[in-house]
Amino acid sequence: MALISSLTPVFLAVVCILIVVIIMNAKKGDKIVKKDTKVNSHSRPWVDEDLQDSTEVNEGGDDEDTADIEEEWTNMEDNISHIPFKINRLTDEEMVTRSKEFYELLDKRRSVRFISDEPVPREVIENVIKTAGTSPSGAHTEPWTFVVVQDAEMKHKIREIIEEEEEINYKKRMGERWVTDLKRLRTNWVKEYLDTAPYLILIFKQVHGFLPNGKKKTHYYNEISVSISCGILLAALQNVGLVTVTSTPLNCGPRLRVLLQRPQNEKLLLLLPVGYPKKDATVPDLKRKPLENIMVVM
Amino acid sequence: MALISSLTPVFLAVVCILIVVIIMNAKKGDKIVKKDTKVNSHSRPWVDEDLQDSTEVNEGGDDEDTADIEEEWTNMEDNISHIPFKINRLTDEEMVTRSKEFYELLDKRRSVRFISDEPVPREVIENVIKTAGTSPSGAHTEPWTFVVVQDAEMKHKIREIIEEEEEINYKKRMGERWVTDLKRLRTNWVKEYLDTAPYLILIFKQVHGFLPNGKKKTHYYNEISVSISCGILLAALQNVGLVTVTSTPLNCGPRLRVLLQRPQNEKLLLLLPVGYPKKDATVPDLKRKPLENIMVVM
Repeated sequence: MALISSLTPVFLAVVCILIVVIIMNAKKGDKIVKKDTKVNSHSRPWVDEDLQDSTEVNEGGDDEDTADIEEEWTNMEDNISHIPFKINRLTDEEMVTRSKEFYELLDKRRSVRFISDEPVPREVIENVIKTAGTSPSGAHTEPWTFVVVQDAEMKHKIREIIEEEEEINYKKRMGERWVTDLKRLRTNWVKEYLDTAPYLILIFKQVHGFLPNGKKKTHYYNEISVSISCGILLAALQNVGLVTVTSTPLNCGPRLRVLLQRPQNEKLLLLLPVGYPKKDATVPDLKRKPLENIMVVM
Repeated sequence: MALISSLTPVFLAVVCILIVVIIMNAKKGDKIVKKDTKVNSHSRPWVDEDLQDSTEVNEGGDDEDTADIEEEWTNMEDNISHIPFKINRLTDEEMVTRSKEFYELLDKRRSVRFISDEPVPREVIENVIKTAGTSPSGAHTEPWTFVVVQDAEMKHKIREIIEEEEEINYKKRMGERWVTDLKRLRTNWVKEYLDTAPYLILIFKQVHGFLPNGKKKTHYYNEISVSISCGILLAALQNVGLVTVTSTPLNCGPRLRVLLQRPQNEKLLLLLPVGYPKKDATVPDLKRKPLENIMVVM
């Protein structure tokens, strides 16, 4: 009895420590669960253009080490000579005229979901992709791969994957409304253009490359760089009278990557179906913001 | 004495609880510090184009709720009528010629760091920004603001902020090498073009907007959308014979946002100094990947 009573303080102390540890771990667990929920609710947005934000998929950067950066630096600075740069200088009048004409051409661009199956010269597709390849990129990594799908069977497989995932997205998103108003929604997740467009261009960003020693070479800013090159691609398509719709098939990236046999360091950024518009094509009657709403001069 | 001895277990328990709480907090603190270090090492990469990856700065999406998405959806689908869409159809030959000419024009584009102080017509700048504003965007949110700085004093303030931060970046990055080889590095963090270029275009992405009820309206894919519009802007600049360098001043976003009085929902994505190249401008003798290295046909 004396032994037990003399042990009481120690026993009490141990119990208290256990209780505190359990409470603090429980709190931590709570936080992790909350974080997960947040990520989930964030990963099911729906947008008109079907653009999927793949900013989360930014692996590759995590296990970078200074040696890699150092090497990249050295390559860039030490081994490359500088050459004179000249431009074809235009007059003020020519610049104003050309800038106005280019604006008027690009202003006619619209995202078109009704694409005809008429063939388009392959040389034109090669030229617009070469044009996209002139884009600047972080550390001149050129971290893009343009997969051009023209095979009918492959296009249909892509359509099946995308519609399957889109249907799940819509069902999850709309809940009961989806069931009661299927007809209106169908126009959104049925993507006929994936079969009819003569070309599907799937643009992959290379989240990292490889150094000669086989280690990962980080591609900084690969998403911004590849998106910029897509902007140039859109301009090039508009310049030859072709149409497309800027889409990112939600949650389909991994399946499409495997289907198209792209390596693991590539992630799908955008899918552009390319062709002529159908004769009865329509577009939503959207207006663009006027210049004074997008430009500030200081 | 008996009182003290009977209090010992309670006292011991309290002491133990305090020790455990202190230890666990210290551990937590450790983790936070470790996390910060990771973020820091990740946020100070150096790239040729100075492109800063701002994918981390993806707030705004966190406190979205389904009601907002629902509202956006309803606006997009129910209230907008569809109109016929026609294009100016070109012949195959015209398409091939135009696509080739556009490629040759864009292929001459280079990132130029030596920009002359000769004036450029303001109308041209307005037209290229109007052109960038024709870009597609997630849910047609048009989440971009183009801040055009032509005031010499403001340009110099921007230069001061950027060079200050760049110097810190370089010092941190290069460590001792920086001290021993200052001269070579100076060419990288001294950015004279920020003073000499007649215009600095600072492109902000609006990470969220506002609903009529004052609540945040999530701008999905704002970074991809704004990057695409910058690609179109680069094409428009090249089309009129102006040069720029695609840069993202590392860690300067918040200070530049405050300097330019932009609201908190805007984050700096890119800074483009715009003008004519200096007579003695040079560029690194970089080659671009050939088509077969960037295109895959299936």
